Amino acid sequence: MRNFRVQPVVYKGGKIFFLDQTALPAETRWVEIDSAETCRDAIKGLVVRGAPAIGIAAAFGMLAASRDAGKKGFEEYWEHMKKAKDLLAASRPTAVNLSWALDRMEKKILASRDMPVEKIQEIVEGEAVKIQQEDEEVCRWIGVHGQEIMRDGMTVLTHCNAGVLAASRYGTALAPIYAAKERGLRVKVFADETRPLLQGSRLTAYELLESGVDVTVITDGMVASVMSKGWIDACIVGCDRVAANGDVVNKIGTYGVALLARAHGIPFYVACPLSTLDLATPEGRNIEIEERNPSEVIRFGGIPTAPEGVHVYNPAFDVTPHPLVSAIVTEKGVVRAPYAENLVKLL
Amino acid sequence: MRNFRVQPVVYKGGKIFFLDQTALPAETRWVEIDSAETCRDAIKGLVVRGAPAIGIAAAFGMLAASRDAGKKGFEEYWEHMKKAKDLLAASRPTAVNLSWALDRMEKKILASRDMPVEKIQEIVEGEAVKIQQEDEEVCRWIGVHGQEIMRDGMTVLTHCNAGVLAASRYGTALAPIYAAKERGLRVKVFADETRPLLQGSRLTAYELLESGVDVTVITDGMVASVMSKGWIDACIVGCDRVAANGDVVNKIGTYGVALLARAHGIPFYVACPLSTLDLATPEGRNIEIEERNPSEVIRFGGIPTAPEGVHVYNPAFDVTPHPLVSAIVTEKGVVRAPYAENLVKLL
Repeated sequence: MRNFRVQPVVYKGGKIFFLDQTALPAETRWVEIDSAETCRDAIKGLVVRGAPAIGIAAAFGMLAASRDAGKKGFEEYWEHMKKAKDLLAASRPTAVNLSWALDRMEKKILASRDMPVEKIQEIVEGEAVKIQQEDEEVCRWIGVHGQEIMRDGMTVLTHCNAGVLAASRYGTALAPIYAAKERGLRVKVFADETRPLLQGSRLTAYELLESGVDVTVITDGMVASVMSKGWIDACIVGCDRVAANGDVVNKIGTYGVALLARAHGIPFYVACPLSTLDLATPEGRNIEIEERNPSEVIRFGGIPTAPEGVHVYNPAFDVTPHPLVSAIVTEKGVVRAPYAENLVKLL
Repeated sequence: MRNFRVQPVVYKGGKIFFLDQTALPAETRWVEIDSAETCRDAIKGLVVRGAPAIGIAAAFGMLAASRDAGKKGFEEYWEHMKKAKDLLAASRPTAVNLSWALDRMEKKILASRDMPVEKIQEIVEGEAVKIQQEDEEVCRWIGVHGQEIMRDGMTVLTHCNAGVLAASRYGTALAPIYAAKERGLRVKVFADETRPLLQGSRLTAYELLESGVDVTVITDGMVASVMSKGWIDACIVGCDRVAANGDVVNKIGTYGVALLARAHGIPFYVACPLSTLDLATPEGRNIEIEERNPSEVIRFGGIPTAPEGVHVYNPAFDVTPHPLVSAIVTEKGVVRAPYAENLVKLL
């Protein structure tokens, strides 16, 4: 395997950089993050995307804000950081990792409130780095446990991008595939292009190809066709949030893939870190689904692809009901139904 | 209803023009057809597309060839026309209307073999015009019979474009919608954008909007999501070929829509002229599915949307097995299962 080590968030020489994923695969461009505002804009503009990566990005956004803060005392520092947290929290509503990372940073700051601000700033830096390192470790373990669903010669269909570019090393949905490759198993991948933003063709195909994995791009409308030919042995997707009952919120189109997999008798797996579990939310339908700009659907590279004035519906995510999920692969093991029970056991 | 009278094939002042559908909705551009070769290129390049329109286009391609031919005698004329027919027949492999129209032109020519070539040329012209006029009439009757499945306030999901632009006035899948509108029924439409070539957002949304029909564009991956919300009352699609058992070959993605409709208890209708029926083909799986250029999937307006060197699978059509088809709407009435029996009865 070629050593694909591009990471979505890089902290180097005291500077924070996000890989601009809106420009891939045509260009490898980096955006420097020096404030909560630049971080918020980057998350909102999908420079960085993917649930785990958004959590990491938000943690580094807090670090950028922490450096920005005055050093007069904790109250002033905390006021500044609280504003940064609110700003970042509002950047994308659906991914639970975002608020998870922000809450973790907040707790760390509040626990250190009696220390000098300079010391707290060091602690904030340490925590951001730790969140990223832990994510790498988590992704590695998702890959390890994911071997339970992998076998030699298999073909996996995936939707959107839940790979290295959506997390850190290995990714989530792609972690079992990368780990299988390292073990010497032959695995092929079909990547749905994932309209409107083409994370499948732009990002998943890119990182798999760079890593020497055999990957075929199809449009989202071809999923049923390739399944009916018997070409797909399993589907593996990442996710943005898992409700307490096992309902899965992921990129728009995931629910359709799950239904089509069920119709063809193909197992449908979700791979995600435990930080994606949201036990406070009983069911998927309780989760707010972000609607994005119509221009994502009806313009491409500035060219209109639909008549002006047409209505557009552009939800970023959909909900896959838990009965369609064959198993959830986490860093602590593979969970199967009944999810309401088994997810709690795992935690 | 605004009077939308754009036709894909226009014969005016003795000249043949195809509306360049690859440039819509940004530009309304016409391509003049003056030989079998220009016609073949236009069909191959999707300047004209949609099963009935391809049949009409091919008939006018034969007219262009007929004018090109020398006037020395029937043998020479027929040799020239036979070549034109073979050339046109090879332009797209899947639509049965293409060979249907070409065979009809051939029969007409052979039946007139004892006449002077000038007279045969007039007959060929008359036949091309007749094929187009008959198609208008056929589409009108599909709309009339289609009222059986329409009701006030309903929302229809359609895939690809099987409207005016794919046929002549009214179209096929959209004919029941246009006819319902004329009757004063309120009908809304969701149009799948239909990747890779976006016939849904570029063409269906365009002609519906121009005709004053309420239309919402979604990506192909959003179909399951809008169905799960209870927003869709019925699916209506056109088709390129119907096998003797009722299996339907249509634009890639149709089979997925049919499966998702079934999963949500939504009726799935196919609207097509009887010329689309291919009783010589027992089942859908016997039909050759055209594979198109990978660049349609991984480039957009010259911009790469996937890394260079990635594999691509790009079938133009898929097969929807007849058990998923709630009914087939034709110009002679609405056919339901068992199709093998009832399709023959209709003919």
